[in-house]
Amino acid sequence: MPVGTLGTVKALDPEDLQRSGVEMVLANTYHLFLRPGDDVVRELGGLHRFMAWDGPILTDSGGFQVFSLEGLRSVDEDGVEFRSHIDGSRRRFTPESVMRIQRNLGADVIMQFDHVIPGQSDVTASREASERSIRWLERCLAEVRASEATGHRSQATGSAESRVTSHESPQALFPIVQGGIHPQLRKDAARVITGMSDWHGVAIGGLSVGESKPDMYAMLELLHPELPADRPRYLMGVGFPEDLIEAVRRGVDLFDCVAPTRMGRNGTAFSSTGRLNIKRADFRTDPRPIDEACDCAACRRFSRAYLRHLYISDEILGLRLLSLHNVHFLVSLMRGARAAIQAGTIDSWASEWLDRLASGPEPQT
Amino acid sequence: MPVGTLGTVKALDPEDLQRSGVEMVLANTYHLFLRPGDDVVRELGGLHRFMAWDGPILTDSGGFQVFSLEGLRSVDEDGVEFRSHIDGSRRRFTPESVMRIQRNLGADVIMQFDHVIPGQSDVTASREASERSIRWLERCLAEVRASEATGHRSQATGSAESRVTSHESPQALFPIVQGGIHPQLRKDAARVITGMSDWHGVAIGGLSVGESKPDMYAMLELLHPELPADRPRYLMGVGFPEDLIEAVRRGVDLFDCVAPTRMGRNGTAFSSTGRLNIKRADFRTDPRPIDEACDCAACRRFSRAYLRHLYISDEILGLRLLSLHNVHFLVSLMRGARAAIQAGTIDSWASEWLDRLASGPEPQT
Repeated sequence: MPVGTLGTVKALDPEDLQRSGVEMVLANTYHLFLRPGDDVVRELGGLHRFMAWDGPILTDSGGFQVFSLEGLRSVDEDGVEFRSHIDGSRRRFTPESVMRIQRNLGADVIMQFDHVIPGQSDVTASREASERSIRWLERCLAEVRASEATGHRSQATGSAESRVTSHESPQALFPIVQGGIHPQLRKDAARVITGMSDWHGVAIGGLSVGESKPDMYAMLELLHPELPADRPRYLMGVGFPEDLIEAVRRGVDLFDCVAPTRMGRNGTAFSSTGRLNIKRADFRTDPRPIDEACDCAACRRFSRAYLRHLYISDEILGLRLLSLHNVHFLVSLMRGARAAIQAGTIDSWASEWLDRLASGPEPQT
Repeated sequence: MPVGTLGTVKALDPEDLQRSGVEMVLANTYHLFLRPGDDVVRELGGLHRFMAWDGPILTDSGGFQVFSLEGLRSVDEDGVEFRSHIDGSRRRFTPESVMRIQRNLGADVIMQFDHVIPGQSDVTASREASERSIRWLERCLAEVRASEATGHRSQATGSAESRVTSHESPQALFPIVQGGIHPQLRKDAARVITGMSDWHGVAIGGLSVGESKPDMYAMLELLHPELPADRPRYLMGVGFPEDLIEAVRRGVDLFDCVAPTRMGRNGTAFSSTGRLNIKRADFRTDPRPIDEACDCAACRRFSRAYLRHLYISDEILGLRLLSLHNVHFLVSLMRGARAAIQAGTIDSWASEWLDRLASGPEPQT
């Protein structure tokens, strides 16, 4: 899932996403709550119509964002009080309020509100946060069930002209398995959570936040047999091509990361032989596309020389084309992973890709 | 013609232009000469291939830009010496060098190098500049004829993979009629210039540079019978919807202006009832498109509320959508003008449009 923080995947048009084969996007509850406001999105017919994206949308719970507001928030059992990064105003998230906000936004998949802690927290802090996250999950689930029972649904009705299909099916609540890099905490959380409900999917949180790669892989491996085999597993906040490959071979189905668009806006392009810095001096007259193996709308039409020129000249089109290429690259990579799984060749596919990515692009001349 | 200063119409993709019905774009010789360099563009197969634009391209002569570098340039009969606005390096344009640069860029229409003066210059300064521009036109024409005779052509051959069709037809040199707001100077220039060669088209320069609207219209009216009836007339640096309408009814065929894209990036949208400031507070929950009468890719999909949200949140997509709408608006306007000319109703069409534009958008609530 490319990340559409504020209801737009930065620098890209929904059409760019569709044509790159993107099936699902993520949007951020914290950011949309502050601007334009979940009430505004609701009034305009929900997030699908607002951002003209007819495919599935997942909204996060805002937990990661508010816990990142170091010094601007206080936590208790009820929820989190924080100050808006925009205007400093005092706000409060609780499991219940976050469910209501996500209902207003109207995504297809909504995330539980969880207690997020730093990546290398000790076992005591990790246990407390994991257990609180599970108590909050119970409150999220109760809130969702209560609102479904009373027939509340995310979309405003009839307030805005129908530009895209409105989505009236119930929202799928995903729980988040926490527990840091502590095997027993992870197992305990997985067992309690999977016992609570027949979830549509399960998320794995608190990884890719500063721990070592072997620690992350170990957590994925021990969770593999603990999670339902027939439901998607979503590894939050990951990642780069190498991370996606390593996680897919350990059973993960769904990812989100700002990397493809953020790196694109910073002038870095993924390629099948590693990353390219588009600013490289020797690209000044390079007629080749970013990646000869890529068929994205940037690589089909434009040279490295042109993209370098756009980037150096601060031209907006350059930001869009590099973002588009990077998103297309990751989606194509995951399409390849799916085909390899179906063909029973995921391990050799993964090894080949990791070798190729590690070989690096041609050196600067 | 939307303006693609550095080989990209700011914030837009060539596909956006095509889908908006744009037939021709302008690019700036001065800017491309400095960055990436006309030699680089030539090596990469010329401007069409470089920017993936297969339609006609016009390059200006750089005259307007170098004469705008107040304090950074000196003029003599041979040409203009100036300092680059990027790195302060000393550079020189002459009629001959500007023809060579435009040959390297490889546009379909190239402009003569002319002596540009402030908009309200007196008759003496205007005559000197007009007469020098005509002497420079003779040198431009001689240079173009010499290069055609020796078989020089703009495109590098075989150096870059063919991504778009290369353009091998001769470049059409357009002269520029100067003369400020002095009727006799304008007439004299038009007569001398039209007597010099069988031009493919003729440009009118030195208007929309600070003179009054009635003065501009008077110049267009007196030039009307002086210019060849069967060749396009290009009014340089114009303009806004009202200006285009007034100029079309006075015989002008071709325009260029940064207004649609620059205004779009500044949050202003053209509409059939005047301009809209997308930041308006009452657009916060407005589900309507910018212009109910518009069928552009922004108006077909997005609300004013969403565009306002993008703009206020500094999202790149907002800049693209507003630029796209504005370009689409002007192209549609000119398509309407052409139909009205063919139907013999240009005067009533123009009056109706001017009334509508002057009525203004609905007031802020």
